[in-house]
Amino acid sequence: MRLRKISGAVVRRLPLYLRVLEEASRDGDKELMSSQELGERAGVSPALVRKDLAWFGEFGKQGVGYDVNNLKMELRRILHLDRDIPIALVGVGSLGHALARYFRRRYATDPGFQLNIVALFDADPAKQGEVIDGLTVEAPDKIREVSRELSLRMAIIAVPADAAQDVVDQCVDAGIHLLLNFAPVKLRVPDGVHLVNADLSLELQRLAYYMRD
Amino acid sequence: MRLRKISGAVVRRLPLYLRVLEEASRDGDKELMSSQELGERAGVSPALVRKDLAWFGEFGKQGVGYDVNNLKMELRRILHLDRDIPIALVGVGSLGHALARYFRRRYATDPGFQLNIVALFDADPAKQGEVIDGLTVEAPDKIREVSRELSLRMAIIAVPADAAQDVVDQCVDAGIHLLLNFAPVKLRVPDGVHLVNADLSLELQRLAYYMRD
Repeated sequence: MRLRKISGAVVRRLPLYLRVLEEASRDGDKELMSSQELGERAGVSPALVRKDLAWFGEFGKQGVGYDVNNLKMELRRILHLDRDIPIALVGVGSLGHALARYFRRRYATDPGFQLNIVALFDADPAKQGEVIDGLTVEAPDKIREVSRELSLRMAIIAVPADAAQDVVDQCVDAGIHLLLNFAPVKLRVPDGVHLVNADLSLELQRLAYYMRD
Repeated sequence: MRLRKISGAVVRRLPLYLRVLEEASRDGDKELMSSQELGERAGVSPALVRKDLAWFGEFGKQGVGYDVNNLKMELRRILHLDRDIPIALVGVGSLGHALARYFRRRYATDPGFQLNIVALFDADPAKQGEVIDGLTVEAPDKIREVSRELSLRMAIIAVPADAAQDVVDQCVDAGIHLLLNFAPVKLRVPDGVHLVNADLSLELQRLAYYMRD
């Protein structure tokens, strides 16, 4: 059973820990890792590492550290990354197109990367039928049908701001409840749907605050 | 004088408020906006809006609200977005290439968007000399020279993970102290350098946590 009360901040750090463990086991020289080292590599305090992981079980041994392979597998399981996750991408303009190629290449070359874009959609009739990296771009009114067929639960939204809410509504109707949104707009989703905003312009704008004159 | 103690969480919300105000003034029908409405549109509580803005001065009037145009200009000034900001982009693989086109198109078409990519770099000799949207791709050893010439303070890093630390060091040496990093790796920067990680894979992975079986 999932523990519903685990905060978003904890969940946000789990993939960071997983990445550190994957790097360590790729380098091959690490069988054990202390919370001190895991924290240092992930950029958080050792106490926070221990506290975060304690939500999910008892993984480390006092004075010995974490078994790298074991903790890696546990984190994969907790994050549902112990299986392939099929993803839809909606909007294959310049950004969406690049995201599709970027993530598909990552999936094809990195055995530790389970996120697999398997369906592309675009509202522009001129783009429908186009083949990108082996996938044919479909009309958004196919989202429901394709989602059912491919058991889609996750989608990347890369459409213009004024089209994003409609696309999100279509995805939610189709049973897609995990959304990564690149459109520079605030979107409404019903309870039970998780939306992460990756608004790249906002990131640049907040960096600009720290500009020295 | 800058207030050094303002937290990153406050700074992160300022561009959100600015976006809400820009949408409102684009729609044209809004001269005043309450903290209630600003908060609702930005997805935070009205109390937090008032608290965040109070760090920077007294902008609203009790019972009247904020003057949309005035607050917009103040936020632009606070974020240094009252002028154009020239940006370097390092790494024009599929993601970097798309980011360059995406942000340059945004700059060209959105008068409220001041972030302007003006220089491209790539370590691959096959890419050097290539022209992307009017900009010629240069070798990374030109970063210092170009930075001085164009007064660069901000860069987008879109190189592979194993090249990212070297590129960041070169940028920092060249006086670039604001960095948006897309490489899936934790990077070290000296004090006074601000680095924001936009690791798109981590965002997908944390979404996967919420997958329903």
